[in-house]
Formats: sequence, structure tokens, C-alpha cells
Amino acid sequence: MSDNGIKSENILEKLNWRYATKSYDPAKKISDSDWATLEESLVLAPSSFGLQPYKYIVVTDPETREKLKPAAWGQPQITDASHLVVFAYKKTLTDADIEHYVDRIVEVRGGSREDLADYENVMKSSAQKAVDGGYIEVWNSRQAYIALGFLLQTAALLGIDATPMEGFDPAQFNEILGLTDYSAVAVAALGYRNAEGDWLANLPKVRFPKEELIVRV
Amino acid sequence: MSDNGIKSENILEKLNWRYATKSYDPAKKISDSDWATLEESLVLAPSSFGLQPYKYIVVTDPETREKLKPAAWGQPQITDASHLVVFAYKKTLTDADIEHYVDRIVEVRGGSREDLADYENVMKSSAQKAVDGGYIEVWNSRQAYIALGFLLQTAALLGIDATPMEGFDPAQFNEILGLTDYSAVAVAALGYRNAEGDWLANLPKVRFPKEELIVRV
Repeated sequence: MSDNGIKSENILEKLNWRYATKSYDPAKKISDSDWATLEESLVLAPSSFGLQPYKYIVVTDPETREKLKPAAWGQPQITDASHLVVFAYKKTLTDADIEHYVDRIVEVRGGSREDLADYENVMKSSAQKAVDGGYIEVWNSRQAYIALGFLLQTAALLGIDATPMEGFDPAQFNEILGLTDYSAVAVAALGYRNAEGDWLANLPKVRFPKEELIVRV
Repeated sequence: MSDNGIKSENILEKLNWRYATKSYDPAKKISDSDWATLEESLVLAPSSFGLQPYKYIVVTDPETREKLKPAAWGQPQITDASHLVVFAYKKTLTDADIEHYVDRIVEVRGGSREDLADYENVMKSSAQKAVDGGYIEVWNSRQAYIALGFLLQTAALLGIDATPMEGFDPAQFNEILGLTDYSAVAVAALGYRNAEGDWLANLPKVRFPKEELIVRV
């Protein structure tokens, strides 16, 4: 048990309880206080160097959600879930992005900007290497998936259903959401399951055995 | 509060407490029962179609950890942390991989393999499209980052320190760990901080403001 009373068995119970919800009850909404916790989990997710090279698009407008639905093969979670988050990674990283982050470090921690010059240069050269090497989009997009993991786990811990989704057309999503410097890479629908209408709700979770997934060296 | 007593404030307290630990106390080991919970979180992490296209390499052998250290720019967490997990994604997805997964679904849920034929074909064609399109490695590697998020969050909830790391040479890691079909993409060191020896331990966490990270539509 941790020092604030969170128990292993309760964590695992909730991670077993969660599943990729296929059918939501459109009448059940996530409370404002739970939603604030979920957003805070997104903000607190770690990322490479702490650069947070992404935006979280929280789509509440029903009309926009109706437009997104056909771009996600008509999946009903897009419109029926209480909340929808689109994860969009930044398509590049410029010196200005790094400088903006260094400004934020100074704002939060105080101290002088000069003391961070070496760190700033390391970040700038890593970013430049990723741009030149053609893997900046891969790098940035992976960071968004850590945040997706945080969001899904926090939702489960609070007893809130969620669906991670990759089955959508990023180009159409970007156009509908007006994204240019960022690109949609994953979606999470969140809300409360309609257990009677969801074929998956009561099926056992399928995972490979631990002995197969984990290699011990 | 969730129905098993996990409170928002306790989750957020722990997500604020965690940080990318730079210095570990090599004498403090994670208990077997906590470690079992952490491994279970890795197993329970969701992935696209549930395919789990990765292995988790748990490196306990001190000699191997000494060999990995120079391939991670000498970062001391590689050898000093209680536990080390290397996330390695599968470099391709074959029909045999999909069939292996369908076998597992039948094993866990029962029912007939024929009932899953449509689903099997959807997965096979998605995998083939990703192979042909040259993005299978990106797709598989992103899934591993969801699991990285799960591991980091569960560790934090249990009061266990962790360090997500991308600063290493994947080719050298693959060679040292004997990986051929899989490739190392991220590392997590886990254990207990040496707070006195860690310059980062007591600095405030830096995140962009919620108003900047979250876009509301």
C-alpha cells in the first residue's frame, strides 16, 4: 500500500475492469470535478525533455463531433461518449519551441536563463537531429501515447469508461479541427458504458500470458 | 471517489510527486509484491486491436546492466535503480502474429475460431497495409508507449520512483539483449530516489499551463 492509501489490489482491479468501451450511455456525463482530474492527468504526463510536443483537443461541440464521426468509420463512441479528446502531436520542433519551453522552466523554477544554456543547446541539437533524420513526427507522436496511457489509467481508477481509438482518418480530423502545425494521432472517448448494448462489456480481457510478454535477462 | 476508494486527490498527489529520477539509492529494492503489481500493469496495458506487439525486457543481471550503461551515455539509473525494463516493439506484424493472437482470444474466451474470421481478416489487412506503407514500426512502437504510461503511473501510485528514458543507442541495446525481431525503443528505471544526490528531486515540476495544452472545440 502506498503512503496515501492507494492499494495494489485496487489499482489492478480497476485496470482489469477497464476495456475499450464500444457503446456509451449518451445520457451519463462525467462530472466537472472528475473531468478536471482527467485533464490534470494529461497535463502531468511526462514527455521527452518535458517538451510536451502536443495539444489535447477536447471536443464538446456536438456539431463537430457529428462531423468527426464519418471520419472515424462511423464509430458511435465519437458522438455518444460524454467527452472526447483528440491527441495531436506537433509536426516539427523549432528553436522557438525549445526557447518557449526554457522560458517556461525559468517562469516555474526561477533562476537565470543563462544557467540553462547547455540544456537548451542539447535540446535544440536533439530536435534538429530528429528533423534532419526525418523522425521528428515519430518522436513527438510517441510522447502523446504516454499521455494517452495516463488518461486511460486515471479514468479506470475513477471508474470512468474510456476507448482508445486509432481508427480514424487523421487528414480529415486535422481539417475538421483546423489543425495545421499539429496532427491528430489518437483519440480517447470517455464516459459511461451502456453495458446492455455493448457486446464487449462482459467478455474476459484477452492478454498474452506474462511469461510470453516479459523476457527476463 | 471511485467505488473502491481511490480518490482524485490521491491520484493527483502521486502524479505531482513523481519525476524523472536522476539518482537512485542502489540499496533500496522494490518488494516482490510491488514488482508483481508493476508487471501486471504492463500486461494489462491496452494496445491496438489488443495485439501487444512488444516485449518487456526485465533486466536484473548486473553484468548486463553494466554493459547497457555505456550504450545509454553512462546514465547511472541503468545500474543503480532497483529494476530496469526495456520496451522493445516488434519490427513487423505477420499473418502468423495475427493468427497467434486469434488463438489466444479463443483460448481465453472460448467459442469458435470461425466466428472470428472477419475480425482476423481486418487485423491482417491492417497489418499488411502498415507493412506496405512503411509505418508498421511506428505503429507498433507507439503501442509500447501506452504501456510505458501505465508503468509510470502505477509506480507513482505505489510511491515508487521511475525514470522514462529514450537517451540510449537502440542498436547497441538490441545487440546486448540479443533482440532481432524486436527493437528497443524506451527504457524505464524503477526504484527509490537518492534525494540528497539528485539535483532534480526538489525542483518544482515544469508543465505548460492547461490553457495552452488543452484546446477546446
